[in-house]
Order: sequence, then structure tokens, then C-alpha cells
Amino acid sequence: MSAPVTPSFPHRHLLGIEGLTRPEIEGLLDRADAAVDISRQVEKKRNVLRGRTQINLFFEPSTRTQSSFELAGKRLGADVMNMSVASSSVKKGETLIDTAATLNAMRPDIIVVRHHAAGAVHLLARKVDCAVVNAGDGAHEHPTQALLDALTIRRNKGGIEGLQVAICGDVLHSRVARSNIILLQALGARVRVIGPSTLLPTGIERFGVEVFTNMREGLAGCDIVMMLRLQRERMNGSFVPSVKEYFRYFGLDGDKLRLAKPDALVMHPGPMNRGVEIASDIADGTQSLIREQVEMGVAVRMAVLEALATHLPNA
Amino acid sequence: MSAPVTPSFPHRHLLGIEGLTRPEIEGLLDRADAAVDISRQVEKKRNVLRGRTQINLFFEPSTRTQSSFELAGKRLGADVMNMSVASSSVKKGETLIDTAATLNAMRPDIIVVRHHAAGAVHLLARKVDCAVVNAGDGAHEHPTQALLDALTIRRNKGGIEGLQVAICGDVLHSRVARSNIILLQALGARVRVIGPSTLLPTGIERFGVEVFTNMREGLAGCDIVMMLRLQRERMNGSFVPSVKEYFRYFGLDGDKLRLAKPDALVMHPGPMNRGVEIASDIADGTQSLIREQVEMGVAVRMAVLEALATHLPNA
Amino acid sequence: MSAPVTPSFPHRHLLGIEGLTRPEIEGLLDRADAAVDISRQVEKKRNVLRGRTQINLFFEPSTRTQSSFELAGKRLGADVMNMSVASSSVKKGETLIDTAATLNAMRPDIIVVRHHAAGAVHLLARKVDCAVVNAGDGAHEHPTQALLDALTIRRNKGGIEGLQVAICGDVLHSRVARSNIILLQALGARVRVIGPSTLLPTGIERFGVEVFTNMREGLAGCDIVMMLRLQRERMNGSFVPSVKEYFRYFGLDGDKLRLAKPDALVMHPGPMNRGVEIASDIADGTQSLIREQVEMGVAVRMAVLEALATHLPNA
Repeated sequence: MSAPVTPSFPHRHLLGIEGLTRPEIEGLLDRADAAVDISRQVEKKRNVLRGRTQINLFFEPSTRTQSSFELAGKRLGADVMNMSVASSSVKKGETLIDTAATLNAMRPDIIVVRHHAAGAVHLLARKVDCAVVNAGDGAHEHPTQALLDALTIRRNKGGIEGLQVAICGDVLHSRVARSNIILLQALGARVRVIGPSTLLPTGIERFGVEVFTNMREGLAGCDIVMMLRLQRERMNGSFVPSVKEYFRYFGLDGDKLRLAKPDALVMHPGPMNRGVEIASDIADGTQSLIREQVEMGVAVRMAVLEALATHLPNA
Repeated sequence: MSAPVTPSFPHRHLLGIEGLTRPEIEGLLDRADAAVDISRQVEKKRNVLRGRTQINLFFEPSTRTQSSFELAGKRLGADVMNMSVASSSVKKGETLIDTAATLNAMRPDIIVVRHHAAGAVHLLARKVDCAVVNAGDGAHEHPTQALLDALTIRRNKGGIEGLQVAICGDVLHSRVARSNIILLQALGARVRVIGPSTLLPTGIERFGVEVFTNMREGLAGCDIVMMLRLQRERMNGSFVPSVKEYFRYFGLDGDKLRLAKPDALVMHPGPMNRGVEIASDIADGTQSLIREQVEMGVAVRMAVLEALATHLPNA
Repeated sequence: MSAPVTPSFPHRHLLGIEGLTRPEIEGLLDRADAAVDISRQVEKKRNVLRGRTQINLFFEPSTRTQSSFELAGKRLGADVMNMSVASSSVKKGETLIDTAATLNAMRPDIIVVRHHAAGAVHLLARKVDCAVVNAGDGAHEHPTQALLDALTIRRNKGGIEGLQVAICGDVLHSRVARSNIILLQALGARVRVIGPSTLLPTGIERFGVEVFTNMREGLAGCDIVMMLRLQRERMNGSFVPSVKEYFRYFGLDGDKLRLAKPDALVMHPGPMNRGVEIASDIADGTQSLIREQVEMGVAVRMAVLEALATHLPNA
């Protein structure tokens, strides 16, 4: 975060992993490596974004992601303002575009947006002058999650090229899966998706992934086992699996994990449903990177905010 | 905001436009003109309120106004704390006066208050040692809205003296209308109010305004067309107009706007009900100042906070 | 807060008053005395916690306590982040331990916690690397409330040794009572508890207090009358007294207060139920310290945060 060894990031927004080149992704990970150290120091504060305004605009609640962006912004010196939908004008019938135009007129430098609709963040980005960061839009993309996952893997495996990664569970409702598939393949990993056929998107094969509906077969030989949260809140009316049966076939326990490589590492974006997607002893076990993912989340968001800062209005 | 060209503001609080002299209003607008530039700079941060505590106490939710005050305070260096009624002691049966006394004991410098009851802000101001800013009290006053409207007009028309301003719509439930009528007349504008008779306060003529219940007649020859939000949430049991019929007679569309002067400008305090008070093409059109109003809102609030700072406790 | 006249505080957390020695308590009160002056200055801002991250994690809403901690942290220069349960992952089924581990991974320096379950704060403290401050856990402890009460008494009576203190009302549901009994006795006060037998914990005598179910008898000769809030929200199904009857027997009015010493002082942790625990004229009268308690609350929390800062991770 001090010497600008990393090349400048050429995009005004971070709307998704799609469209980023491998050097751009690696540049962000390099910046994030440096940012990790800031949060580990006594005075975890820099002036990179001093006098800048960051608005966290969350149309869906998310403690983890919002907190991570809030701390990232504050540690870089920004003035951070949280706006949640519950207290927003959306209740009074204002459109997303009016909300965007209103915020834009307040001259923010960065808007971090989470929205329940795929594409809403792109729409918003076209209406504002400042940088926009996608903090999750529907089942579309969640780029900072994919970046933090990649950072966590790279720091633990030394690299991503050639790794065999399994993404397991509710792929259908997961923006995390989608962003990770794109990013991991861009960095040279081979990706498998594993889940019940009802929770796999039709035509997922066109992303170049191997597809398994049998978890035991899918885990064989994997370096990374990335579990997904079962998004029961997104399953309106459609197939909702029984928790007990789901865990038996698609929950990660010691028995299934033994089918992956002996040094396989386990990840989960959180919040976890223990006993549903993952057994508690695995979540807390020596192969788990789940806590480290959270720490890397703050670092990756600092890196993204800093990278975008060079393109901010009037900069 | 640097050289104190403007005379000092002689009041401890800003509770309403009523009671302010023309030079005091113009002094605030001059300060706001300077503040506009701060938010347009890369480092939009000053130390005017560094070490000062600003509490935003909102008994009614309002994204727009609260955000505007929050950014204004933070850009002047204040520590800003938001308190919304949902999480407040009011739920536990505490009185407004006890809430005031409690906050006062925490030694804030400025309390920004929105309350659903007219007069509640005056009551609170009498109970505290710090500066109080009225961010809207019932149907009574909303002084910073009137100031930002005046600032927007002045910057676009070069002055306010002699302008013909039409305030249109739900005047009955509008604190915005009331504050604007007082302020615009103090600066020499002529003001008309236009609306269905059921949404005009009885005896509104005593404020020295012309009254029209026919919008086409009222708009003739106007320089400024200021639309109001239809406050359906405040119409408990009484007359609630049908949206379709309301728009036909009192919604601003291109057809009606042509009756105003050719260079007439259009305003709305937001959030807008598109297709109810105003047609979308007019809201987004070349005569609209609606986005600029939002930007001026931050500037005016910075000006008010800075003006009051000279009277803060121990200053 | 400038010259370190006070000895360093030897604990990593502040989980309760239980376990603190008299010199440790008095050291915190001395620090708090110095902190009072900071909030009374024009620039109420220090850099003691600059670059530090303070998370306020409130599983129960509390305007007063959360605001007090927020202002305390901000006035010491910390980056403060509020997390309320309503917007937290707890809704998504995450356990307290997972929440703790997640927050911990974000590298905070201090977590201030309020939780509805006694012992939850201790559990959380064992799972994190940073300092934890108990802001109230169930009916267990509320140490900063006891410290602010002691500070208020000490500043008004010159000391606590030998004072006769009556704690009156709903002792059963009160963490305030428990923390105060331990602290006041540690500083040499004699403590009585007064309340209807249904609102007194069984075996309260083992804490070394005198017990009265007749308020008039209990108040005789007291220096301090500390009223408690009637926690009707915690009385699920069990005995809920009628407000009118409660006030007649256990509400503090002028008539009952005359039975205490002539210079007796009146306290209440707030928010008050006027006309239930206390008559309005007494709450606002010359013997009342209720407003001063709120001011001392901010000072005590600044003192605690500062005392714990010397043990913070990497410090």
C-alpha cells in the first residue's frame, strides 16, 4: 500500500470478475497482500482515502460484507456512510435510478452496492460519476468474495495455477460460485461444481467446469473444497431440500473430505449453516481456511478501494 | 468557508426560517456557495468541526435529509452519530424531554432533529445547551430545505428578487411549502400556491401568497415551478386523491409547463412520485433543477453547521 | 488522560466488576475524572485510540449505552463500527461463536457487547484476541453502569467509604443492581436492597446486603437512593405488578425521600418510567444526579477503553 509496485487498475468500477484480465486480477491480489499487514498493525489507518466519501448502499442486509467494506474504507481514511434499504427512500416508492441520481448529487467518491436483482449494480454504475463496487447483485456476481477466496488460496497454496477446485452445494442461487468460477479459471485453476441437479444451473457446463451430482465422486483429487451456503431464503416455492437429507449427500464431513487430496483445504463464504452444508468439526478443523477468508475479505476490499481511488472524480 | 467574509450568524439554533432577517438568510447562502466547492474537490474535508459531536436524532426516517446532514458534518470534520427512533429509548416510554436531557448530558455540540410533531424541535431546543437544527418538524418548518431551494434558484437565476414562484400540490401537509413561502418572500420573490382546495390550508392567503386551484391558471408567467411531494402517508382518513386524477389536474407535464415562462425552472424536494406529481420527462428534462437541489442540500447544511459553530458551547 | 498517574489496568477485558480489586476500580475512576474534562472542551478529541477499531455489538437495542460507547470511542480517536442484531447474521442462523470468530478475523481492537444471555459476553471473550467490554449481559453484570454510578457518587459525596446506599425496585431482573452491589461494597459502602419480595432474587442476602421489602423502612438514614428501572419487558408470564400499585409502595416520591438523610442524593440508570419508579418532581429535583450520571457514563467508557488500550493486540 506504500510503494506503487502494482500497475494501476484500468477500470472505473468493479462490477464483476467477468471482463478482468489475469494481470488485473493478480494486481489486485498483490495490493491485497500488502493491505493484510495494515490491519495487523497497532495503528491500522492510512490516509489513501482521506476526505473521500464512501457510501455503502445495501438493498439486502449483510453484516459480514457491509462490515468488511466499512472497516476497509475507514482504515484507508474515508468517510463511510451506511445506507440500508430499510431506512431508505425506496420505501417511499423512489426508483433505483432516482436513488442513484440522488446519491450521485451528494458527490460520493465510491458507492458499494448490494442489490437483490442481477444487473442492478450495472444499471446504477451507468447513472453515477463515481466508482461503483458490486457487493453482490442477485445470483449474478460477488467479485470481492471471489477475490478474497483467491487471495486466501494463493497465500496457502503458493499459487492457483493448476489447482483442482471443487465448488459444492447450492450453485444455482450463488453469485459466489459464478464469480469464483470465472476468477479461478482466469488464474489457471480447474473447477468442478458439485450439487444436486436441482441446485445446478442448466447449461453450467458452458463455463468450462466439470459437473458432478455425486459429491464423493466430485471431491476425488481436489486441492480446494469450497462449500456454498444453502440459500433457502432464495428458494421461493421451488425445490427446498430437507436439511437432514441435504447434509447426508452434500454436507462436508470428515468422511467425504478424505476423498479429496490429503492436503486439501476447506472454504466457506459464511455465514455457515453448521450441520447443513458442513460438519462443525470440519469447519473448525486444521484444513479449514474459513476464518482466514474473513480477514482476507477486509484486505481485498482495501485493495479494491485503493485501486479505484486513482480514477475517482477530480483525482 | 475560509475567509470570514460573511457576517457571523447571531442565532444559537436554526429552528425555522421564520424570524430570520434577509441579511441572515443571504449570509447563509453566501456561506453555502463557498461550501459547494468543498464537496467538488478531491479531498472534501475541513477541520471546522473537528472534535465536535453532531447527533442526528431522527424520529421519522429520511434517507435524503439524514444522509445530507451526515455528509455535511463529516466533511467539516465532526464526529457524527446517528440515532433513529426505531432503536431509541422512545420505545421504552422515555419522553422527548428526557431524551433531550440525556443527549445533552453527553455534551454534543449540535443536534439535528426531525420529529413528526410541529413544535417538538422548539421544545427540545429549550432543554439543551447545544445548537439545534430543525430537519423537519411535522407540517411546520424545514428550514434547510428552503435554504437549499433558494440557493439553487439564486445560482440559476442570478437572484431571487422579483421572481414569480409557484409552489404546487399538497401544500396542506408540507413543511417545505411553509418554509419556502417565508424565505422566498423575505428575499423579494412573489409566491403563488397551487393545489386542490382540499390540499390547501385554510387561510393560506394571510401569508401574502396568491392562491390557485387551477394549475393551468397558476402556472402562467412563473419563473420557478416548485412541485411538492404528495404526502399520502400523512392523509389519515381524510381526503386521499386518486393518483390518476391527481396527475391529470395537478401533475406537472410538458403541456402544463409550457404555460409558465419559456425559461421557467422546475424543482422538487424529493423523493419523487413519478407520474403522480411530475412526469418523468419533465423531472429529467433540461428545465429540471432536481438533481442540483440535492447537491445544494449538502452545501447548505455545511453552511448552517459552520454558522452555528461560532456559538457552540465553550467555543 | 495525559500524564499516566494512574497505574496500568492489569486485565485484558472488562467483563464484570466481580474480580476487580479496589485499587483497580479506583484507578478506573481516576482515569474517568480526567476524561470528564475532555468532553467539556471545544475540541473533544484525543488520539489515544487513533487507528484502532472498536466494534459495538448489540444483541439487545440500547440507545443510551451504545451512544455512550460510540461517543467515548470516537472522542478517543477510534474508528467505531456499530453492529446491531437486527441486521446481523444471527438472523441467518449463525451462532454466537461464529459471529465472534468472524468479527475477530476482521482484527478489531475492542468489542463492546450487549447480549440478552448472562455469560454470553464471557463466552465471546474466550473466542477473540481483542479486548471485550461487557455492556450488559442478561441479568448478570453491567460493569460500566456501576463504574459511572460510583464516579457520580464519588464526585458528589467526596468518597464512597462508609456511605449507606439503597438500591430500590426490580432487583431481580437488574444487572445494574448486581454490578453496583459488588462495586459499592468493594469501595466500602454499605448496601441495602429494597423491593417487593417477588422482585428480589432468592438468597440476595449472601451478597452481604440488608434486605427490605418495606421501602419506608429501607430508606431511613440512606445517603444514596438508587432507583432501578422496572423491567416489565423481562417479566415473561411471571408476576407483573400494576403500575399504580407499584408506584404507591415502591415509587420514589417526596414523601418517601424525606425518610432518607436530608442530603441524600437520587440516582436512576435510565430510561426512566416517570410515575412508575420515580415521581417527576424528584427526577428533576435538586437531589437528583440523574443527568450527571449520563455525562459520567461517557467519561467512564473513555476511561475503560483507554485502560484496555495498553493491552490491545500488537500494542
